[in-house]
Amino acid sequence: MDNQVCNGTSRIVGCRFSVHPMTEDFVSVILGALEEVDTSKVWMQTDDVSTCIRGRLPHVFDVTQAIFAQAAKTGHHVAFSGTYSVGCPGDTEGDVYMSEDDTKVNNSDIDQYAACDFALYPLGSDSYMDMIMEQVEAAKQRGLAVESIHYATKLRGEAKEIFATLEQAFTVTQEHNSHVVMTASISANSPSHKKETDNE
Amino acid sequence: MDNQVCNGTSRIVGCRFSVHPMTEDFVSVILGALEEVDTSKVWMQTDDVSTCIRGRLPHVFDVTQAIFAQAAKTGHHVAFSGTYSVGCPGDTEGDVYMSEDDTKVNNSDIDQYAACDFALYPLGSDSYMDMIMEQVEAAKQRGLAVESIHYATKLRGEAKEIFATLEQAFTVTQEHNSHVVMTASISANSPSHKKETDNE
Repeated sequence: MDNQVCNGTSRIVGCRFSVHPMTEDFVSVILGALEEVDTSKVWMQTDDVSTCIRGRLPHVFDVTQAIFAQAAKTGHHVAFSGTYSVGCPGDTEGDVYMSEDDTKVNNSDIDQYAACDFALYPLGSDSYMDMIMEQVEAAKQRGLAVESIHYATKLRGEAKEIFATLEQAFTVTQEHNSHVVMTASISANSPSHKKETDNE
Repeated sequence: MDNQVCNGTSRIVGCRFSVHPMTEDFVSVILGALEEVDTSKVWMQTDDVSTCIRGRLPHVFDVTQAIFAQAAKTGHHVAFSGTYSVGCPGDTEGDVYMSEDDTKVNNSDIDQYAACDFALYPLGSDSYMDMIMEQVEAAKQRGLAVESIHYATKLRGEAKEIFATLEQAFTVTQEHNSHVVMTASISANSPSHKKETDNE
């Protein structure tokens, strides 16, 4: 494996994810969300288990955030599960999307409470606990509630701040590591959400 | 990080997962599945995003397979997303469950077609592509359809063979690597499943 440190956002980034609306009407929630999202700056393929998008880092986060936001806007309990990757051996197809500029094309600035479990794996690095701790501090600065849980870190608060934290954590980590993987499970409109305000 | 090779199944293994039934009635599907599953041999904790179970390797796979099987049995479109981990720095709580024997306590041998995306990450290893290829061959021997996709491997076929493949892949890999993470997204009763038999 090539362990060289690559140059930030010039590398192709991907996310394989699923959106699960907890309703019999899941097909129209998913299709409706996709219709509202501009996916023109990423390569995209969907099958019976997941959707894979690939392109430049900002657009991969822009599109996943927008799809989650649109699905959550329906009010249904919606869960997003995804794995973001960069530097995977053999990742080449879809390079045409690497010529896109940095401008995000979706506006996902809706108010939406969400909770997220995320885990960051800089493969081949043995100092990743420090990186995770730095990102935990950054999440707190964004007003998110942060909790350390087994195998992951839990973030609670505004969905846009959660995605901003995920994007920053991934960006910073991949600047120092050739191959980085980050998992995120994000939930909206759950009857079991325990918001911070519940205690006030 | 401690990179020593540890002795197989004597280590604590965990899985953080969510089960998403695509129905308004998701609460009763999840609770109903949990009621039918014997979780006595694992440490378990559930919150608003996910459930975490921890214990000996066979029981972590036994319980996740059983919960998926019970939820799928309802006939609803059900998705399971989970991350299996072993050797995570700081993993200690719940060690009391490590004294359990090897006997699995759930019977999940139902006929259930499923499709699964899985990805195996032996952290700190640079030869993991070979390990994955070996497990792909083993999956084919079990009668599963195997497809290489971006960032993952897709398995299609009987759910019990999918879980057997996941358990074997994880077992073999963690025998040679201190810290191993494996993600799995498994889908049952999806209207977009394209079964192998569709082409016959």
